[in-house]
Amino acid sequence: MRKKFITPRKFIKPSFSFLIEKKRDSGEYTKDEIRYISDSILDKELPDYQLAAMIMAIFFQGMSAMETAALAEEIMLSGDVIDLAKITKPKIDKYTTGGVGDKTSLVLAPLAASCGVVMPMMVGHDEDFIISNLSKLESIPGINTQLSLKDFIKQLKAVNCAITRQCDEIAPVDNILYKMRQKTAVIPSLPLITASVLSRKLAQGAEGLVIDVKWGNGSFIKDLEQAKQLARSVIRVGRSMKRRCVALVTDMNQPLGDTVGTALEIKETIDLLKGEGPEDLKEIVLKLGMEIVRLGGVAGSTLSAKQIVNRHLQNGKALEKFKEMVKAQGGDSSYIENPDKFPKAKFIKKLPAPKRGYVHTINAGMIARGVQLLSKDSKGNYDPAVGVSEICKVGAQVKQGEPLMMIHYNNEAKLDSALDYLRTAYRLAPKRPNPPQLVVERVA
Amino acid sequence: MRKKFITPRKFIKPSFSFLIEKKRDSGEYTKDEIRYISDSILDKELPDYQLAAMIMAIFFQGMSAMETAALAEEIMLSGDVIDLAKITKPKIDKYTTGGVGDKTSLVLAPLAASCGVVMPMMVGHDEDFIISNLSKLESIPGINTQLSLKDFIKQLKAVNCAITRQCDEIAPVDNILYKMRQKTAVIPSLPLITASVLSRKLAQGAEGLVIDVKWGNGSFIKDLEQAKQLARSVIRVGRSMKRRCVALVTDMNQPLGDTVGTALEIKETIDLLKGEGPEDLKEIVLKLGMEIVRLGGVAGSTLSAKQIVNRHLQNGKALEKFKEMVKAQGGDSSYIENPDKFPKAKFIKKLPAPKRGYVHTINAGMIARGVQLLSKDSKGNYDPAVGVSEICKVGAQVKQGEPLMMIHYNNEAKLDSALDYLRTAYRLAPKRPNPPQLVVERVA
Repeated sequence: MRKKFITPRKFIKPSFSFLIEKKRDSGEYTKDEIRYISDSILDKELPDYQLAAMIMAIFFQGMSAMETAALAEEIMLSGDVIDLAKITKPKIDKYTTGGVGDKTSLVLAPLAASCGVVMPMMVGHDEDFIISNLSKLESIPGINTQLSLKDFIKQLKAVNCAITRQCDEIAPVDNILYKMRQKTAVIPSLPLITASVLSRKLAQGAEGLVIDVKWGNGSFIKDLEQAKQLARSVIRVGRSMKRRCVALVTDMNQPLGDTVGTALEIKETIDLLKGEGPEDLKEIVLKLGMEIVRLGGVAGSTLSAKQIVNRHLQNGKALEKFKEMVKAQGGDSSYIENPDKFPKAKFIKKLPAPKRGYVHTINAGMIARGVQLLSKDSKGNYDPAVGVSEICKVGAQVKQGEPLMMIHYNNEAKLDSALDYLRTAYRLAPKRPNPPQLVVERVA
Repeated sequence: MRKKFITPRKFIKPSFSFLIEKKRDSGEYTKDEIRYISDSILDKELPDYQLAAMIMAIFFQGMSAMETAALAEEIMLSGDVIDLAKITKPKIDKYTTGGVGDKTSLVLAPLAASCGVVMPMMVGHDEDFIISNLSKLESIPGINTQLSLKDFIKQLKAVNCAITRQCDEIAPVDNILYKMRQKTAVIPSLPLITASVLSRKLAQGAEGLVIDVKWGNGSFIKDLEQAKQLARSVIRVGRSMKRRCVALVTDMNQPLGDTVGTALEIKETIDLLKGEGPEDLKEIVLKLGMEIVRLGGVAGSTLSAKQIVNRHLQNGKALEKFKEMVKAQGGDSSYIENPDKFPKAKFIKKLPAPKRGYVHTINAGMIARGVQLLSKDSKGNYDPAVGVSEICKVGAQVKQGEPLMMIHYNNEAKLDSALDYLRTAYRLAPKRPNPPQLVVERVA
């Protein structure tokens, strides 16, 4: 599958320790060197320990936009690059750094497709405490979230959107690199994140890319400045690769929406696709949706973008497309028509407010961990009925004993440990806090 | 062989990726953590790639004196610690970072022993372009440079000095770490060098340590500031380990002495042991020798130290001790009595000065590489007859065509490539340069 290139004529292979030393001393890799590194990772010629030292040196010394673009390009070319040229519609993808309660991708793929923008959405690496959108989809009986490359392309042609696990043929070097980064504490490297995102998304056939960079206690990026830097890095490198890219830096200091859990979040997705649902999610779906239709050229102005997105949410086209997508992937779409079919938890219990006051801060990561504990079994499978709903958000006023959220669970034995997480997540204060700013910055 | 310790009561083993992250974010390891890391290296429980990432993070973030001392201690304790308590004389070791033409250790071991200071000298890692003192000794027929631990101790008791390859039983964690540092471009890490030197030297039974930190183009430390830092680091950490240590920072911007090569350097060693030989070597032997006898408590003042060292060079006692040591290690000591017995090269050719002038700079590293090319075969064995002699030093005045050095060689085919190195090593200038300062700094 891999694209083989002619080795550049005059490139003399340097030793790997020389290449590590070069980066250690803040040197800039040439395009040939980056190709050689990527090829050597793919061919398993670069020993693990030298790769580990190299990426740690990259963590400290960074990479220029040129280096990052070259790395993204080489990683992309390490596997199949999906050719969607036969689909004449614009092909825009969306990437998020991941957040608790974030179901916007599940909404945006059918929404964009209904607006005439193809969304080839492959879901990559799992973040440790965040429920993947694939796990959420898997609460729909029968659905296949592991399409083959052939079926993926077929579905894109027929339905214009698909959400599936990333195929092994896509950017295999990224898989190797990502696993190594996990084991060596090099996940938060700006150029390596940038190259990872761009390589995968562009290999998946996207012409343009809308990126949601989340910052806060429910993201792996805890720091706003770092989130802004990542957004700028992806945009700069994406441009130097001649792709249209827009990034929004958004808040992840509380769960998005009112639910966390697999089927509970699918139900919220359905609400959103009807133009309903909680305000924060509605706002972010609208903002990201507008970027997608504008990038795809379906709308010429901000105003028309807003009209198109709202129309497709109101007239049922987006929801219709979601059903179509679920059906195409083998899922039982009657669950979408009638969300009451989803299984319900044996127990539903409130998390009582320990005192009166305003919700001052919520640690979204803690809530995610609490939900994981209740809903994920030792094999990594989720109980679809389990999760939390009616989450009180930052700024809400509560009286002592009033519910901060409703906890849906089946396993009583785990409740106490989960409650520890959920309780710790809330801080109440006597004064109303400033409302969080949902979209902090737009980078284009 | 390894000393097993009781695991501290309340130490909960952290994950290795947590430990990498801690150092990445400039955290300070606790003593327990350092013991756990060292134990995990020894037990091969710390995977290569995580070790690589960890030492690269250490390269960038450094280690405190406390951490470095703890690491040195743990590495030392990872193997045998030689107990020389039965030898009542003071036991002082010498360590050099390595330099071209540096044969001072070969002089100092017998000199110190003749003055009443025991020198347990084990030679560790090879520097890539520098001829190891063991290779020089091996030009003496019959000599054994790989003593067993038992024979090493026996010889120290009988002769009071020995020069041998470091036994495998000594600081095994250091061997693993050093090999990893070589492959991952982490050799020049101040705390890791410091811990390596101290762990090995103290495991070899030394009570005190004299360190020669060389800086310049013939050392792996090219920068004077870095050399000073290393000297201070070793002294600081050595002290916190309650050992007597002195460091000299010395010049390595030209070869030491007039010869580079195995048997040629042994001949120069013999000259020095007679109180003769080139001035720079005489000076540094005297300076280091004085530190050794003072540290060993044999001399109370600088003046008496100088007198003792000079006396033992003049009265033949030091040379006698060298013969004794060679004999004890199975070598043919008649070569020491009559150095003319060493084989001579088939060809001896001058390196002519390309113009008149003063020797302005010499790249010692280039000379070392030229000599390596001529004298070392593909198996890594040296031809004892080969090398360079009568090296013109910085400040010397030459006329065009006069010899900058004499080249002794047996293999004509390699001469041209070697000449490339040797010629490039010299820069001549019309004005006399300032003489280099041999001992730049003393740290105690």
